[in-house]
Amino acid sequence: MHTPIQAPVNPPHRLLMGPGPINADPRVTRAMSAALVGQYDPWMTETMNETMALYRDVFQTENEWTFLIDGTSRAGIEAALVSLVEPGEKVLVPVFGRFGLLLKEIGERIGADVVTIETEWGQVFTPEQIEQAIVAERPSVLAVVQGDTSTTMNQPLEDLGEICRRHGVLLYTDVTASVAGNELRTDDWGLDAVTAGLQKCLAGPSGSSPITLSDRAVEKIRTRRHVEAGIADGSTAGPGPVIRSNYFDLAQIMDYWGPQRLNHHTEATSMLYGARECARLLTQEGMDRAVARHALHGHAMASGLAALGLELFGDQEHRMNNVVAVLIPEGINGDAVRASILSDYGIEIGTSFGPLHGRVWRIGTMGYNARRDAVMTTLSVMESVLRAAGVSVVAGAGTATALEHYQDAA
Amino acid sequence: MHTPIQAPVNPPHRLLMGPGPINADPRVTRAMSAALVGQYDPWMTETMNETMALYRDVFQTENEWTFLIDGTSRAGIEAALVSLVEPGEKVLVPVFGRFGLLLKEIGERIGADVVTIETEWGQVFTPEQIEQAIVAERPSVLAVVQGDTSTTMNQPLEDLGEICRRHGVLLYTDVTASVAGNELRTDDWGLDAVTAGLQKCLAGPSGSSPITLSDRAVEKIRTRRHVEAGIADGSTAGPGPVIRSNYFDLAQIMDYWGPQRLNHHTEATSMLYGARECARLLTQEGMDRAVARHALHGHAMASGLAALGLELFGDQEHRMNNVVAVLIPEGINGDAVRASILSDYGIEIGTSFGPLHGRVWRIGTMGYNARRDAVMTTLSVMESVLRAAGVSVVAGAGTATALEHYQDAA
Repeated sequence: MHTPIQAPVNPPHRLLMGPGPINADPRVTRAMSAALVGQYDPWMTETMNETMALYRDVFQTENEWTFLIDGTSRAGIEAALVSLVEPGEKVLVPVFGRFGLLLKEIGERIGADVVTIETEWGQVFTPEQIEQAIVAERPSVLAVVQGDTSTTMNQPLEDLGEICRRHGVLLYTDVTASVAGNELRTDDWGLDAVTAGLQKCLAGPSGSSPITLSDRAVEKIRTRRHVEAGIADGSTAGPGPVIRSNYFDLAQIMDYWGPQRLNHHTEATSMLYGARECARLLTQEGMDRAVARHALHGHAMASGLAALGLELFGDQEHRMNNVVAVLIPEGINGDAVRASILSDYGIEIGTSFGPLHGRVWRIGTMGYNARRDAVMTTLSVMESVLRAAGVSVVAGAGTATALEHYQDAA
Repeated sequence: MHTPIQAPVNPPHRLLMGPGPINADPRVTRAMSAALVGQYDPWMTETMNETMALYRDVFQTENEWTFLIDGTSRAGIEAALVSLVEPGEKVLVPVFGRFGLLLKEIGERIGADVVTIETEWGQVFTPEQIEQAIVAERPSVLAVVQGDTSTTMNQPLEDLGEICRRHGVLLYTDVTASVAGNELRTDDWGLDAVTAGLQKCLAGPSGSSPITLSDRAVEKIRTRRHVEAGIADGSTAGPGPVIRSNYFDLAQIMDYWGPQRLNHHTEATSMLYGARECARLLTQEGMDRAVARHALHGHAMASGLAALGLELFGDQEHRMNNVVAVLIPEGINGDAVRASILSDYGIEIGTSFGPLHGRVWRIGTMGYNARRDAVMTTLSVMESVLRAAGVSVVAGAGTATALEHYQDAA
């Protein structure tokens, strides 16, 4: 009924230096083109087990229940919240950017009683502020993002696990923007549920959400276990309320990834291959070295942008290594400059959301693009487009400063 | 902390002749390895628009709202139900296999008042039976699968749209197992919401769920539109109850796919590339020719299996073209035979669920595997393994019968 579209997909060349998604590592997309096998093929279940083991390293955990949710990073968030939080239970969300608001939004939709504390965009919370709110509100779950890309801030988590345990609170965090670019120690920090996505420092495409669950989290979720009628195995249902989603029912998804292999969804095998390769590349590099790489290139980028005369946004002591926001110079149309960078140079940078839309540009150095040539090229182009837009810049200052940073670090 | 896994993924050769997933068309997995671009890159939004147009052809519809849900086929089911059905509204589900039970299960979890009618596995419903139930139950939504792979049955839908309109009922159907292998006419049949998956006759991997919505369905969903706080655009919320999921909120997902391009999830770009290629290949072939291809190879398979002495399961007049179930011969360990087919010949066939587990084998001829060599090889191997298992078979009968079928059809 319509004119058929003749050609296969043929994307233009892009260097994606925004806040994500970024260019996938070619090894990841190559892995995704591998042949499919059946869901219960012994090779497939072994590959699922390998993927679980790899993500234990990524999350720095011994948690048995470390697996993938078949959806984008916000699928992992919703799966964690809808499975962990019973309707009417209280969830405390410290909001320091757009993704804190997203946790609040998802929490409300799944029937939680959500309370928030807020801080200015560009800042993070102290452990004391969060503990005070826990004492005042007595939530069942503390839900907080580690890195909020909307502001580039990285909320310190290392003290929160101990605080949460002392007050009998489960600690959930989303690390989509931060994992592999910044320190994350699930077990050492006492995190009970952690979700991620592939499209930032993991160097893959969006579409799979790794998750890990502590024994405490699993115990709570298991009280809500209800196997669907079509495949009921005769085991008894848990005493807790049925999880209000089938697709995001972590109790059933654990039965699918676990030795029972109870049928649930049909695993998104190509995404699984990609997720496995993301983790394999990182664990071969070593997680600490991957974080150091993001710190090196992220600081080179930030120092270069500052040398071009751009003011860095937010508390730089608590910024993620892998993304920096700069104030758009006065009198400049930020979106027009971004459009020129994209159409004339094939480079993408981002703006932000809400109060920061049109006020900042966000520039990422993530995953496959946490590389010297990507940083240097971007700084060179930023100088060109700023000058063309009428901003006075010191010629060569951005690239020279970044190069110095690399030489000092060598 | 663990031994790193050294090798990239390296799947064994498999010919996937079960009820799905099946081998993806190599053109689809190649398309998925194309480079990523940014979410709001003009090329990306154009590619999303092309994908919408392609799926209008696949679904045989002029529906503007034809797009992808980022998840497996059951993600599409849950998105349709949670967005269409308000908590407490009545949904009628005709159950003729495991996937009818799944619709019931998902409906209950999202707060619907689910009523069912049931028929024996291996049968379908008459339009009169469904209309009687509509008259008796007065549901808001009729939710029915077209093809239920658990039984191989294909529920006729062509009369249901008119019945539903007459009674003021919205008609939702899942066509994951049947689309492109069997006739589907969304507009001509008056279907209001249709969801699918890539892993059967669309010849792709699991992980993306195409969906199409009629104007009636969109109108109802839009009454429940609530834009999330982090990106609120000042538009007013709809009067209907908030959708109990963020990830599956079709009102927000339409705003993301539509000209507003409101940020929601980060599109699973590699899966989008794959989904686009699945639809491109089918629309180039022509949907009617694709259905005829599945009929040709599916009938060759079924007639060959019957010639081997296997009894076909269920109402053959209402079987899907692309999958057939056969009763496992008396005295045979069906799972041991399946294991031998897999390990000795690299071919996968399936068993089924619930009352049919261990009673039938299911053999598919779907998508990329709806091919003469796949059918002939499978029949040859079935003869070998049946004989080895002690079943008396007429030598050469399966392959000879299939070949005759091909010659008659030529």
